[in-house]
Amino acid sequence: MTSELYPAGRLGQVRDAVRSAGLDAVLLTPGPDLRYVTGYDATQLERLTCLVVPAQGGAALFVPRLELAAAQASPVSGSGLELIAWQETEDPFGMVARRLGQVTAVGLSDRMWAMSALRFRDALPGTRLELAGPVLRPLRITKTAAEVTALREAGAAIDRVHAQVPGWLRPGLSERAVGVRVSEAILAEGHASVDFVIVASGPNAASPHHEVSDRVLAAGDVVVVDIGGTMPSGYCSDSTRTYAIGEPPAEFTGYYTVLQDAQQAACDAVRPGAPAESVDAAARDPITRAGYGDAFFHRTGHGIGLESHEDPYIVAGNGEPLRPGMAFSVEPGIYPGPHGARIEDIVVVTEDGYQRLNQAPRDLVVTG
Amino acid sequence: MTSELYPAGRLGQVRDAVRSAGLDAVLLTPGPDLRYVTGYDATQLERLTCLVVPAQGGAALFVPRLELAAAQASPVSGSGLELIAWQETEDPFGMVARRLGQVTAVGLSDRMWAMSALRFRDALPGTRLELAGPVLRPLRITKTAAEVTALREAGAAIDRVHAQVPGWLRPGLSERAVGVRVSEAILAEGHASVDFVIVASGPNAASPHHEVSDRVLAAGDVVVVDIGGTMPSGYCSDSTRTYAIGEPPAEFTGYYTVLQDAQQAACDAVRPGAPAESVDAAARDPITRAGYGDAFFHRTGHGIGLESHEDPYIVAGNGEPLRPGMAFSVEPGIYPGPHGARIEDIVVVTEDGYQRLNQAPRDLVVTG
Repeated sequence: MTSELYPAGRLGQVRDAVRSAGLDAVLLTPGPDLRYVTGYDATQLERLTCLVVPAQGGAALFVPRLELAAAQASPVSGSGLELIAWQETEDPFGMVARRLGQVTAVGLSDRMWAMSALRFRDALPGTRLELAGPVLRPLRITKTAAEVTALREAGAAIDRVHAQVPGWLRPGLSERAVGVRVSEAILAEGHASVDFVIVASGPNAASPHHEVSDRVLAAGDVVVVDIGGTMPSGYCSDSTRTYAIGEPPAEFTGYYTVLQDAQQAACDAVRPGAPAESVDAAARDPITRAGYGDAFFHRTGHGIGLESHEDPYIVAGNGEPLRPGMAFSVEPGIYPGPHGARIEDIVVVTEDGYQRLNQAPRDLVVTG
Repeated sequence: MTSELYPAGRLGQVRDAVRSAGLDAVLLTPGPDLRYVTGYDATQLERLTCLVVPAQGGAALFVPRLELAAAQASPVSGSGLELIAWQETEDPFGMVARRLGQVTAVGLSDRMWAMSALRFRDALPGTRLELAGPVLRPLRITKTAAEVTALREAGAAIDRVHAQVPGWLRPGLSERAVGVRVSEAILAEGHASVDFVIVASGPNAASPHHEVSDRVLAAGDVVVVDIGGTMPSGYCSDSTRTYAIGEPPAEFTGYYTVLQDAQQAACDAVRPGAPAESVDAAARDPITRAGYGDAFFHRTGHGIGLESHEDPYIVAGNGEPLRPGMAFSVEPGIYPGPHGARIEDIVVVTEDGYQRLNQAPRDLVVTG
């Protein structure tokens, strides 16, 4: 991808952060951390790919021999990073350990599989294993202008999918069938992959992490549609809208307005210096006052970037002050059953407030 | 999903296996192991979902409060398994540790993220952490009749995608544009998700794990198309075909025939009792004899089921005897550059030989 999005200076920033954290090295397997540092979009598999970034000395990327050409074709190639290919019958964990030499503490990618983490534990006896996440967190948690642009493009792409959703919400179609159309549209509108598709109709709308089922849509249903994907840039989209097929239940209409106001109030609470939890409280207070406090049983949001869920989390207890460049979802929900609703936009903290990256209408869209 | 595919007796089998392995429990986070044991198709996220299967006593599934309804709607609900929901501000790792009590050794899902594995390490001081994979491996490595049926359905679905590929391989289209069409077709032909799409054209065909790039297809290109997805059943597809746009280079035509013969020879080596590595040797020998040994630098195959890569691996050094019900890819490749080729089918070991689950033509398809 563009060097603006994955600037060459990142490796040096990470080396400094490793040193400040008092670690000897971080070991980054494929996933968001590796991509953040190098731009290399590799897939985590049973064969080890691992970027070793030591506090002192040169970094090296260990790759399976059959992925050497893919690594050479990636942004890694221009970075001066040493590439070390291992053969099918070699032990890459031992190779990394020999490269590290005597080390006291190393940090592992948060998403490294246990099958690799325990192999490193065995290959590095006496070494303290920590997570690399806290090392990279201060870098990743605020987005550069190029990252915000990439998130804005992702937001526009998922908005274009939501614009098509009302046409698919027809009585007689199953959630699963709607889900396939959503997935196809996520790709057609410019994402490289589909991350999740929730089409929660009728009573399923009261289940926040429902995905899709064989339930057939019917007139009178409320449908929560929460969808997202990853763009070729590596950056993610995530947006929820709630739809009604024909006239919704009377109670629903009442609390949907409460939800809309709560989501707006939470967005309006976003500004530099405000603690993350104040955004959660701003969403929760009006919902609680309206008597639906128990029906809003998840946090208000999560950070987004190269992962669809990352720091900062917008949750009670997180007093971290918001800073310009932080990007996260604002997604209160009300799930009293036998229906429910959620509205979700991604927002970015600006110098004096916030900007929404999703523009699909938040007024209830009634179809059919 | 059907109880035939995810039978209720699995939990008991796993408990027995935990006991035989000398572990106190296995801790299974969302992924193939959890799905194998319970049929529950949850997504691994930063909020912990964890099935605790102790050697003695009742199993329990810890879920985030907001996923409780999803878990209740899953096959877990009829299993008698205890469901324990944790609230956003609780510590689920501590809750699991208290449930376990004093334990000596527990096994973690192979794909559990390090961020959870290290939390369990800290919550269970003095407990030896191992992998759950070896406990579940003997169960998962041979497929039941229902699993073979699910894999056959997956194979037929990806065959239907390959049948459409020649129509998309037109000069002027980019690999990325072809990849989007392939992804859409993977979904349209019945998969629930796209796992990977490799469209490797021209010189990229010599890079086995190339994905897609902005390279534009041209007449005379050879194109390796290696694609797969996961069906609603949970079972995966994976098949590779190599195509030519117009007349391919003369050298290519020569080694493609060698490759076709090698792939057939490897399949013909599949029978109960044959060591896994003998299938690799059967593919490698004719390629080496033809002078392309150095250009075939990956193993011949990998098991497939709820994961697209799982045991058994068809690689030198794996002397494990094949048994009926084992399912794996047979996918030799020749990559001399500036082009390359691979042919991949999934096969299942039968009582007296093997059955192919992919039927797309293996003769070179020349398009355009």
